[in-house]
Amino acid sequence: MKLPIALSNRHIHLSAKDIDTLFGAGHALTHFKDLSQPGQYACEEKVDVVGPKGTLKGVRVLGPERGESQLEISLADGFVLGVKAPVRDSGQLEGTPGVKLVGPKGEVELEKGAIVAARHIHMHTEDAEKFNVVDNQRVKIRTFGERAVVFENVLVRVSPKFALEMHVDVEEGNAAGVKNGEMVELIAE
Amino acid sequence: MKLPIALSNRHIHLSAKDIDTLFGAGHALTHFKDLSQPGQYACEEKVDVVGPKGTLKGVRVLGPERGESQLEISLADGFVLGVKAPVRDSGQLEGTPGVKLVGPKGEVELEKGAIVAARHIHMHTEDAEKFNVVDNQRVKIRTFGERAVVFENVLVRVSPKFALEMHVDVEEGNAAGVKNGEMVELIAE
Repeated sequence: MKLPIALSNRHIHLSAKDIDTLFGAGHALTHFKDLSQPGQYACEEKVDVVGPKGTLKGVRVLGPERGESQLEISLADGFVLGVKAPVRDSGQLEGTPGVKLVGPKGEVELEKGAIVAARHIHMHTEDAEKFNVVDNQRVKIRTFGERAVVFENVLVRVSPKFALEMHVDVEEGNAAGVKNGEMVELIAE
Repeated sequence: MKLPIALSNRHIHLSAKDIDTLFGAGHALTHFKDLSQPGQYACEEKVDVVGPKGTLKGVRVLGPERGESQLEISLADGFVLGVKAPVRDSGQLEGTPGVKLVGPKGEVELEKGAIVAARHIHMHTEDAEKFNVVDNQRVKIRTFGERAVVFENVLVRVSPKFALEMHVDVEEGNAAGVKNGEMVELIAE
């Protein structure tokens, strides 16, 4: 039972309020390219992310806008910024560190929102039936090749809005030596 | 059956000839701190590593000197430099890319030597008996915690000169969420 894997580079989701502050009142995000998940897209817009120890320049904004701004970085990025971003599922922002965002029209001091996204699988409802798993189940994923690994504790998220794909961050992808679109194997937990 | 893990940051081993060129004729490497493997040490000396796309500044030199210079980087470092360093066991430098090294007294154009070190375990001969493995065997290693992984294809190297420790690069360590000295579990292949 195989599915494609994709590496997520650092990126940020922004609230409407923060878009206004960073890019100007009433600014609409500019579509750059579609992502694999239906309705999700990379934007032309980028922001600088500033932490107590350093800056990540030109962090890509992903659209559409969200209820809350959320910065997704790697552990190495967190070291550069000087913030201890925890491994979290998307949207679980309670107690996460804040950072400063710098855009062309203004700055935002996020009080929270920096996470290392927990590895996860997006599955369409029909895929979940084929793989015999349910929403919020944790599974294992095996990769192949000289750097083969088994990722444990992989969250499955099921929705009719999702397309089948596993998401890991760049460090996880490089540790496994996988490239975007490579096939990996699901092992029931 | 558990052993400690350690994360290797980018570093370089230098030949006597390259030490002369980079730091001046007859220069002796300056001990900064001992490493876990007996006789191995981090040096005060650092070099800049220059590739076709970018530079890694201040890469730590490890001593003692070696027969051939060898640069150990992560896949992400290779992307910064613009070189495709392959995953290799230490010393297997045939066909690996070269880089330019810049020291305080001179520069060296390495014709080869840039690798991503394959994950491996150093074992004292007595540890190998306890773990029931032999030199050059490949094993699996499990880590623990929310980012738990199983590393496959882990090379075991046995010598009376070695101290028990698994070595991974920073991306592998971060992907597993492990810290230096954390205990991991050996699973026979």
